[in-house]
Amino acid sequence: MKSNSIDTVLEVRLRHEPGMLAQVAAAIAEHRGLLCEIRTVRVGDEHTQREITVETDTHDQITKIIAAIQTLTGAEVLTTRDRVMEAHRGGKIVVESRIELDSVRALRTIYTPGVAQIVRAIQIDPWVAADTTWRGTSVAIVTDGSRVLGLGNVGPLASLPVMEGKAVLYRCFAGLSAVPLVLDVSSAQELIDTATRIAPGFAAIHLEDIRSPDCFEIEAALAKRLKKPVFHDDQHGTATAVLAALINAAKVVGLRLDSATIGVVGLGAAGTAIANLLGRFGVGEVLAHDPDPAAAARGAQVGARTVAAPVLYAHSDVLIAATGIPRLIPPTSIRRGQIVFALSNPEAEIAPDVALSAGAALASDGRAINNALAFPGLMRAAIETRARTITSDMMVAAAKAIASCAPPGELVPSPLDLALHEAVFAAAARSVRETGIANTAQP
Amino acid sequence: MKSNSIDTVLEVRLRHEPGMLAQVAAAIAEHRGLLCEIRTVRVGDEHTQREITVETDTHDQITKIIAAIQTLTGAEVLTTRDRVMEAHRGGKIVVESRIELDSVRALRTIYTPGVAQIVRAIQIDPWVAADTTWRGTSVAIVTDGSRVLGLGNVGPLASLPVMEGKAVLYRCFAGLSAVPLVLDVSSAQELIDTATRIAPGFAAIHLEDIRSPDCFEIEAALAKRLKKPVFHDDQHGTATAVLAALINAAKVVGLRLDSATIGVVGLGAAGTAIANLLGRFGVGEVLAHDPDPAAAARGAQVGARTVAAPVLYAHSDVLIAATGIPRLIPPTSIRRGQIVFALSNPEAEIAPDVALSAGAALASDGRAINNALAFPGLMRAAIETRARTITSDMMVAAAKAIASCAPPGELVPSPLDLALHEAVFAAAARSVRETGIANTAQP
Repeated sequence: MKSNSIDTVLEVRLRHEPGMLAQVAAAIAEHRGLLCEIRTVRVGDEHTQREITVETDTHDQITKIIAAIQTLTGAEVLTTRDRVMEAHRGGKIVVESRIELDSVRALRTIYTPGVAQIVRAIQIDPWVAADTTWRGTSVAIVTDGSRVLGLGNVGPLASLPVMEGKAVLYRCFAGLSAVPLVLDVSSAQELIDTATRIAPGFAAIHLEDIRSPDCFEIEAALAKRLKKPVFHDDQHGTATAVLAALINAAKVVGLRLDSATIGVVGLGAAGTAIANLLGRFGVGEVLAHDPDPAAAARGAQVGARTVAAPVLYAHSDVLIAATGIPRLIPPTSIRRGQIVFALSNPEAEIAPDVALSAGAALASDGRAINNALAFPGLMRAAIETRARTITSDMMVAAAKAIASCAPPGELVPSPLDLALHEAVFAAAARSVRETGIANTAQP
Repeated sequence: MKSNSIDTVLEVRLRHEPGMLAQVAAAIAEHRGLLCEIRTVRVGDEHTQREITVETDTHDQITKIIAAIQTLTGAEVLTTRDRVMEAHRGGKIVVESRIELDSVRALRTIYTPGVAQIVRAIQIDPWVAADTTWRGTSVAIVTDGSRVLGLGNVGPLASLPVMEGKAVLYRCFAGLSAVPLVLDVSSAQELIDTATRIAPGFAAIHLEDIRSPDCFEIEAALAKRLKKPVFHDDQHGTATAVLAALINAAKVVGLRLDSATIGVVGLGAAGTAIANLLGRFGVGEVLAHDPDPAAAARGAQVGARTVAAPVLYAHSDVLIAATGIPRLIPPTSIRRGQIVFALSNPEAEIAPDVALSAGAALASDGRAINNALAFPGLMRAAIETRARTITSDMMVAAAKAIASCAPPGELVPSPLDLALHEAVFAAAARSVRETGIANTAQP
């Protein structure tokens, strides 16, 4: 499957005849469609009805595929459905009531007059809110939509489906109530002010898809103002997942990380956080490169040695790219035996197979190394232990836990593995207790 | 039941013996506790275990009641539980996923890369967000906690359980996803700015428990800035419920509203909106009184004739009080045959039984006449018809629908009656279509 592709379900009626499905498959392949799934809906005397899921890059391809199938004798496309659009119909999340409102007594308990008792209890001890309201498990997912996926600045409303996706992951992987807040703001300061003002009702703030360098200023300002976890996922979620993959990759190729040289190309949100976390983890040395002087200065701030690109390519045991630039890295720059993580989506700086052909010992991209491995468990740990921040120690602990959950032969586990998220939670919560930062948050 | 009371469940073990329960009931009554419910938990050979729900004004009363029961021979209090606290444990709402995340395909459909397709579709047509995200059914419940119930300025966090209560009602009565946003703001302008910035992800803004006169400025500014419904429930929800009750009250006493004189005492949020809506509905005349000159000016603005209190008392066929001042209205001010709605909580300006003794034909208070009758259906109608505002026409239509749902002998129906909310929705949506304001909202 390619990134940003279109999933279409074709409902087709096919005559019982050897080779019928092969002809359909050929028609799909002719227009570079990817045949994904075939489901038999109904078997009749002369015909079979099937749902065929096809992936394409464009809608135009689908039109051509349908036309090609219609020309086949014995084949007919009955309907088409857009799988992605169908899955999103009505939205992906809802606010659900935990209360069954089945009697006047229930109403008077949770609404007036009963609720006044809870209000007064919170006035006396604000932490009561963590036990009696969703403040105990609520996360605000805050964005301005300025850097969404590989699509750039799409604005707040268009970013909403992505934030809802994060909220689904928070619910399914960590049992948290995450609320997308897509903000119409025109400066970093406005975003900071707004996130500060909405903060009282949330246990933590998850920053998402905010452009660099605004994201650094915003995270730092909020971390200072709010006495509760503020987590920029594009930075720290990514860094944690990368460290997890790196721990396993080093084992596979027999590299000692404590004496290894890691090269990080691109010091945006992800690259800077990766350079920082690898340093905290204790790799031998971190080299970094970014043509933007301000970005390079950030690299130095987090302990990386900033060097020219050729120097970095030549000296790195591990090459990590997070630049957003497709095909940036020429195959000739790959060092024999290198580990290569080219993270940019939808197209990597160097495709894994190209890197391997060029001599890399191991190569992966941003599709496998996903921050969804890290953020649900990390956030849950911070909230449940009432830690004021999510520290590098917690991220390192989480990365080790993720690495240890990977099946044999894989760098990382599947994010669908619920035991993974429990392990990340447990490891990060243990780190909180060991480093003495439990109960440092304020309501 | 009194307002702001404490519900306690006493688990008691009582010896099988005639009069045992009567003695317990007497012990509860002795300390002015209200015996609400008795549930038998277990029947043994010699003892019966029961859960007795008791309402008191203070925790001290409960302590005394328990002590009194313990002195009875054959009675023992095993445990006590706070019913309200128990019902609130863990919060009243959660963000739930509508997606079952059971496969890599599901993950890739609702998260990256699939979600990018929805992002691009919204960039092309913002209304796509109403079909593919919770933007189609989401309401932001915005407050600064400056005027919560009868408790005053409790601040944002302590107001959260009240906002969650509203969210429960939105879910149960209108199928909407309402998100409490309790704001840490220090001025009306900051609240306006914040509500504007969070607006893109929501279909409508519900303003709640914001002090007067800030609430007027805030609602007006947001209605101007945002091209979507902005609804201050304390004003318009209350006014709609009052009009509904008034329609039925007038029938009971044989009063013609189109030639009646209605007196409104107190021109805060509720009083001003009531005076306004009754005028729009078409009562004979609205008199209003408020000692604050700014408030009195607001009354004049919405078409009421502002008069001194004695004039108002003497000339009103219907007396409506929304002052927040307990026992403000002396029984001697009640006119024979008057309809009296004294709305302040937790204690009314004049208790219904006192007003009746003083000669009122009909009297009610704010517990029965509740805005929960109105806001769920009104908001749903505005959102589904894509109306830009909730108009007086819609509120009048809603009030008539509420009135028509009242059971014989009652002024208003129970808010638990789901048919009521459907009726309010249908009437308000019809009003939207008839007045030509459907599809005037912007995404």
